[in-house]
Amino acid sequence: MTHQDSRAPGRRPWDEAASAGVSPTKTFTLEHPLTLSSGRVLGGVEVVYETYGRLAADRSNAVLICHALSGDAHVAGIKPGEDPATARPGWWDPMVGPGKAIDTDRLFVICSNVLGGCSGTTGPASTDPETGRPWGLRFPMITVEDMVDVQAALLDHLGIQRLASVVGGSMGGMQALAWAKRYPGRVATVVADATTWRLGAQAIAFNEVGRRAILEDPDFAGGDYYGAERQPDSGLGIARMVGHITYLSDASMHEKFGRSLQSSDDYAYDFVSEFKVESYLAYQGRRFVERFDANTYLYMTKAMDYFDLQGDDPTLAKALSGVTSRFLVLSFSSDWLFATARSRELVSALRAIGLEVTFAEIPSDYGHDAFLLEPEAQHRMIAPFLAHAVEREAAAARLTVESPDRGAGGGAR
Amino acid sequence: MTHQDSRAPGRRPWDEAASAGVSPTKTFTLEHPLTLSSGRVLGGVEVVYETYGRLAADRSNAVLICHALSGDAHVAGIKPGEDPATARPGWWDPMVGPGKAIDTDRLFVICSNVLGGCSGTTGPASTDPETGRPWGLRFPMITVEDMVDVQAALLDHLGIQRLASVVGGSMGGMQALAWAKRYPGRVATVVADATTWRLGAQAIAFNEVGRRAILEDPDFAGGDYYGAERQPDSGLGIARMVGHITYLSDASMHEKFGRSLQSSDDYAYDFVSEFKVESYLAYQGRRFVERFDANTYLYMTKAMDYFDLQGDDPTLAKALSGVTSRFLVLSFSSDWLFATARSRELVSALRAIGLEVTFAEIPSDYGHDAFLLEPEAQHRMIAPFLAHAVEREAAAARLTVESPDRGAGGGAR
Repeated sequence: MTHQDSRAPGRRPWDEAASAGVSPTKTFTLEHPLTLSSGRVLGGVEVVYETYGRLAADRSNAVLICHALSGDAHVAGIKPGEDPATARPGWWDPMVGPGKAIDTDRLFVICSNVLGGCSGTTGPASTDPETGRPWGLRFPMITVEDMVDVQAALLDHLGIQRLASVVGGSMGGMQALAWAKRYPGRVATVVADATTWRLGAQAIAFNEVGRRAILEDPDFAGGDYYGAERQPDSGLGIARMVGHITYLSDASMHEKFGRSLQSSDDYAYDFVSEFKVESYLAYQGRRFVERFDANTYLYMTKAMDYFDLQGDDPTLAKALSGVTSRFLVLSFSSDWLFATARSRELVSALRAIGLEVTFAEIPSDYGHDAFLLEPEAQHRMIAPFLAHAVEREAAAARLTVESPDRGAGGGAR
Repeated sequence: MTHQDSRAPGRRPWDEAASAGVSPTKTFTLEHPLTLSSGRVLGGVEVVYETYGRLAADRSNAVLICHALSGDAHVAGIKPGEDPATARPGWWDPMVGPGKAIDTDRLFVICSNVLGGCSGTTGPASTDPETGRPWGLRFPMITVEDMVDVQAALLDHLGIQRLASVVGGSMGGMQALAWAKRYPGRVATVVADATTWRLGAQAIAFNEVGRRAILEDPDFAGGDYYGAERQPDSGLGIARMVGHITYLSDASMHEKFGRSLQSSDDYAYDFVSEFKVESYLAYQGRRFVERFDANTYLYMTKAMDYFDLQGDDPTLAKALSGVTSRFLVLSFSSDWLFATARSRELVSALRAIGLEVTFAEIPSDYGHDAFLLEPEAQHRMIAPFLAHAVEREAAAARLTVESPDRGAGGGAR
């Protein structure tokens, strides 16, 4: 899962009572071919997803969680067959579970691996039906909007016409914003957490450095490294190291590592990692390549770079004119990758078109990773927001039942 | 030269009247072997340097300029034989010349390529006398203090016992600070420009990413790529790209590139660089590998990481207790790599021990590169500071001449 590796040293053991429980992974195959933003058509898309909690009879409590760059469908709880004593809970476990910010006692929570991912959903490591070989770089380019279209098809399959909320951090927040613009009738509320309506030049530049490291790794082999003896571990590891620095803040790195040396009081005067921060980054790089696919890294970072909620419109407010959702926008004070200033621009645009927006900049030293590391502060904002969203959805559902002449499709919504 | 590549688009043609002139490159070989910080001994060190202006009879006007990570001795003017119409002036040409911030009509300016460099001074590309082959990674690790010791030997050779000022930006500023601590009697003043008394974890982390990219490039060949068919261009290019992002500010990148595409109005949906910022970074990477040595990049970044003016002392002020120089400390508002906060810590420590310090944070959107891109603002601070420094040195020289019984070695100083 994306960033939460930085949480690893403080990882808590699984607490069954506080857990979303054992969540089996399910798979759904789209019936129809998908026409992508690029114009290419992709058939036979498989989506891996998990659900938590129970869907209310009036279907008023469905919440979709969208994951970040390197996340997956396993957002909370443990997997069937995992030993609770050693299990790695899902990537947002402190946030998703009974009584937690996203309360699985009250909500029906869905989380799916994104299109282009490498954790079950169709992506560049999947088999190209025309060649019988892995897609590699022949896989079509994916946009955030394409990811959202796949999620919409999944919700159709689950019989969920409308979401009480779409919740996402980082690239997940981009998906949440895309949902509000692309499917306004299906999204009551949006939680846009540590995200942005588009990346600036600096963030694109960092992504491009990571991509270059992968693309220029000889073991990348033009993307056709599946099954090969050597994998582009060096390039992907370097990409992860760059990314990881941008997820942390200068203050949190200073607090965590400072200038401490790994194993000696004196400088070694060699090129082996000797500052703790070097060893930590190298470790993060090594761990990442064990579980993540280099091609997916390329596709995910491109999707983020392409994402621009304003699109061809002259202003962001104009681009959002069809949006009807209510918003909770959260940023973190030390997040320099998805800075508060960008969130404020989003908030201004949403308010300019008369939408209801709650905004908070949460004080934190954890940088962009704060959305994974500050469950309590997010709980205070998200829990009541979602509770209220479900109440309104339930009330609207009652109205629709009482006044069927108001029409199907949720006229009161 | 380090960062000034980002200036390239606005590079001015050579202006002879405003130029430091034609500066021949000179070479000096140290007579004695050098004992390095690491304890290793390096013999036969050659230093390449340039000088500008004339040394006053009382030797009161010598100013040493120290260069940054990828700089060289060619700080200003053009080289002998260069065509003025197409010449690339030295890396700090807007700052060094007649009437400029570092006024070559009044000052005798010295600039040498640092130990471990790749522009003439002994470094990893030099021949190891024991093997007759290039040193490569067998070259001893270099510290900022080692660089300064070589410069001190050069000044001995030039007959300059004492400097009116040591001036440096970025890694050059580290050298200037090391001078003040290591040779207090020889340094009247220090201009510490866009620098720091030590790097934090974030800056070390960025340096380490660049080093990993080089060390893991198969063409690096353990550092023995000299004369080989392939060079570690990919790794060095990626290192440069990372570095370059950190030299700019988010604001300057946004201003310069935003989300503009290189050659189309529409997304190409491929992995070729398509945002302007991507093409720009790729270009910077390619240009850099044409003129810079990957091994030197490793050694210079390590020297910066190791630099810690506090050393083993409990406080910075304590570590600086022997320092006698006067200081001009300059930082730039948008420089997040060498942030103003670090400069303020330095200023506090210097003032705590009663030293005279002038400090200014220059407003600029150019990030760390501002020290190369804001000559006017620096001129206003540096020119009077240096003029005053020389006046005081000249006055002290007169005093010494008038009162020889006060002792040799500059008792009045």
